[in-house]
Amino acid sequence: MKAFLKEINFTLIGRIIGFLLMIESFFMLTAVVVGVYYHGLTHYTMAIATITTFLSGLIIYVFNHKTVNQLGKREGYIIVSSTWIITSFFGALPFYLGGSIPSFTDAFFETMSGFTTTGSSILRDVESMPRDLLFWRSLTHWLGGMGIIVLSVAILPMLGIGGMQLFMAEMPGVTYDKLHPRITSTAKRLWGIYMLLTLLEFLFLWAGEMDWFDAINHAFATMATGGFSTRNASLAAFGTYSQYVVIVFMILAGTNFTLHYFALHGRLKQVFRDEEFRGYLLLILITTAIITIGLVVSGKGTFESNFRDALFTVSSILTTTGFATANYLHWPMFLYTIVFLLMFVGGSAGSTGGGMKVIRQMLLLKNSWMELRRSIHPNAVLPVKFNNKSVPQEIVYKVMAFFLMYILIFAIGVLVLASLGLDFETSVGASIASLGNIGPGIGLVGPIDNYAFMPDAAKWVLSALMLLGRLELFTVLILFSPHFWKK
Amino acid sequence: MKAFLKEINFTLIGRIIGFLLMIESFFMLTAVVVGVYYHGLTHYTMAIATITTFLSGLIIYVFNHKTVNQLGKREGYIIVSSTWIITSFFGALPFYLGGSIPSFTDAFFETMSGFTTTGSSILRDVESMPRDLLFWRSLTHWLGGMGIIVLSVAILPMLGIGGMQLFMAEMPGVTYDKLHPRITSTAKRLWGIYMLLTLLEFLFLWAGEMDWFDAINHAFATMATGGFSTRNASLAAFGTYSQYVVIVFMILAGTNFTLHYFALHGRLKQVFRDEEFRGYLLLILITTAIITIGLVVSGKGTFESNFRDALFTVSSILTTTGFATANYLHWPMFLYTIVFLLMFVGGSAGSTGGGMKVIRQMLLLKNSWMELRRSIHPNAVLPVKFNNKSVPQEIVYKVMAFFLMYILIFAIGVLVLASLGLDFETSVGASIASLGNIGPGIGLVGPIDNYAFMPDAAKWVLSALMLLGRLELFTVLILFSPHFWKK
Repeated sequence: MKAFLKEINFTLIGRIIGFLLMIESFFMLTAVVVGVYYHGLTHYTMAIATITTFLSGLIIYVFNHKTVNQLGKREGYIIVSSTWIITSFFGALPFYLGGSIPSFTDAFFETMSGFTTTGSSILRDVESMPRDLLFWRSLTHWLGGMGIIVLSVAILPMLGIGGMQLFMAEMPGVTYDKLHPRITSTAKRLWGIYMLLTLLEFLFLWAGEMDWFDAINHAFATMATGGFSTRNASLAAFGTYSQYVVIVFMILAGTNFTLHYFALHGRLKQVFRDEEFRGYLLLILITTAIITIGLVVSGKGTFESNFRDALFTVSSILTTTGFATANYLHWPMFLYTIVFLLMFVGGSAGSTGGGMKVIRQMLLLKNSWMELRRSIHPNAVLPVKFNNKSVPQEIVYKVMAFFLMYILIFAIGVLVLASLGLDFETSVGASIASLGNIGPGIGLVGPIDNYAFMPDAAKWVLSALMLLGRLELFTVLILFSPHFWKK
Repeated sequence: MKAFLKEINFTLIGRIIGFLLMIESFFMLTAVVVGVYYHGLTHYTMAIATITTFLSGLIIYVFNHKTVNQLGKREGYIIVSSTWIITSFFGALPFYLGGSIPSFTDAFFETMSGFTTTGSSILRDVESMPRDLLFWRSLTHWLGGMGIIVLSVAILPMLGIGGMQLFMAEMPGVTYDKLHPRITSTAKRLWGIYMLLTLLEFLFLWAGEMDWFDAINHAFATMATGGFSTRNASLAAFGTYSQYVVIVFMILAGTNFTLHYFALHGRLKQVFRDEEFRGYLLLILITTAIITIGLVVSGKGTFESNFRDALFTVSSILTTTGFATANYLHWPMFLYTIVFLLMFVGGSAGSTGGGMKVIRQMLLLKNSWMELRRSIHPNAVLPVKFNNKSVPQEIVYKVMAFFLMYILIFAIGVLVLASLGLDFETSVGASIASLGNIGPGIGLVGPIDNYAFMPDAAKWVLSALMLLGRLELFTVLILFSPHFWKK
């Protein structure tokens, strides 16, 4: 046991987690400010939760202060997975303590759904919630979208050395574009762009019909590709202008942030040459066109409203945001199926979008096509090309393994949910909606439904799926391998 | 154009297909005999179809007689895919000509479903069909199960040289165990075992309550893992004894025939050491146990009848036979989901069972597990082991590519069926039931339903899926690659 403890530097893990909790409490504090602004001193659960989180973080930090700064690979994995669970635990306190969400399971589900930017809610009436809690709920999205750890890498000098490990474990993607040779600078730039885009969306929404509160909450939820709204009707509660603004920013949020960086530096040519970005836009275009035609043919609404619903739904599902303006469950079966299949795609790598990511699906499609050619010419070396470069076989292999693992976990999710008594369509919908960090699924968890009716066990299972999806499986699964704990 | 024709030896292709049609007509002749026995000379569509098939084959053969015997890889692929389509076309004639199945689409669907051993039927009342047609229907299963081309390789000396190519294109599997260095001898041995097991099942069934006609038809359908029955109620029309006999032979039919060969030569140890066989048995055992418990808990029927329904359904779906004794659509959702997931597994490689095959799923699972270890030790060489041997990375890669292609085609199937107006569950069920050559799916195409209600377009799509599934995708898909047709 002693040798074991020596192997993994738990003191360092403790120290970093303690620090991260203090960062979380700082963000909670902004919700306290919002609460005081709107509600005065009528309730103070947000404040109690903030203090609890801060003190817990401080105690953990202090108790683990004396340690060397040697952040290994294994420590990295443990830190990332446990941070996400622990911050969700503390993040659930504001909802639970004052009884706004009376069940801790529900409060945890809501918070995990927030941090993982899933956006599945157990709230039947969002509008009756105190505003500080709504603000905190949107803020969990925003923190989780770019990642609280990526943020820490940017601001914590102590993570300067081992930070790459943490960064890679939390940041989704297939390969990593470094915006700067130093990982802290890359993290800073990413967060900078993220804040800039959030600010822009806030201003655009505020310029329309939304008040500053709705505008900031929706800006948080959009840029994180989260999906929590301050309204029961989600974006259907707002007009055409707001919906188009949200569409634009959903698409931006689902784009690789490296491309935003390029665009900000005037390298637009490079942006539009990017194969993933082109695939992503093309997919949005084609599916929106098909759905628009389908909706027009089925004969309800104007052309513009059908186009808007189509584009909104496609952007919302593909980027895994999960906002709704229309109920795709009532669309013709073909359109419904398109939406369902989009749930298996996801946003771009290096974006805040969840799912399997466009680049992976493109690589898999290209490789399948190449596999046909390989059957004809078994001795030829036929690598998959991406962005005009040959993709190493090893990367394709890893992408395939990821897809398989994803489908396997999706299937296990379906099986477990069905064993808890959910019907087939709901099990399928809830499993992919959680694993893909989308929010709405199919069956009883469509875009205008919520997860309140689910049994507690299902909510824990879905929370686990959300975490697995957000951290792209391996970061979490690796902890379950006995080899991880052996030297 | 001339250069193109020179490239691919179409004369040779024609000659072989002509010969195969004559072989088909020979088997049709046995159905004529059955017809004469049961119906005398009251109708003669079976005879007309037989003569048409024979003469067509003869004419094609004669017109292409003068050719060299150089069977290349491309000729092989063209022969296999087109043989399956052409024999289905001629095989549909007996049903269509006399009006027993008035729509040609339906007749083709039924025949393709027969040859591919899918067992999906458009017949609402099987029992009202003339017996010669029922016999022919079962015979299409039997021919397709081990493969009309594998049969030809066994008996046609002209295929002795290029036969390996044809054999591999038709015989399912990941790698190929040669039972004998010469491919014709391997094919002979496989067909020998197949006939022996069919004979045994026939005798066992005949010894019970079935008359010889029911016994031989069910023996054909079982050993081919087909699923056409002579009764509307499928195996529910028969008693406990017959059901257990069918269970045993379904499991044998879903086993690698190489293992039967070993068993016949007393090498039983080798059989039970085979990892795929052990995985296959274990999967049957575990799922049967869970379903039995589930059915007992839900409180209907005796323990024995629940166990029998569970074992029958698991064997029927896993081996992709598709016989039914119980309607799993009405089982508790958890059990239903297990059955659904079994549809994605399939029989063993080298068996007559369809689907993705147990060995592929085992390799994928093992590789996923290994992938976790590889994330921990990125520099270690960690191959997947199977039967105590390292599996070359190349094979694992091919298996992954197969899985991806399979899921992609399944998804396209769902999308196309939904576009034809089928509901989500039926689209999902019909797509996997056809691609996996199972027969019954979920939704409106459950184990006691049939495919008669489907629009014609859906029947053609499903026929294509059956063919893709039976020939394990690449053999068919390769023909759609422009590179196939270029030098």
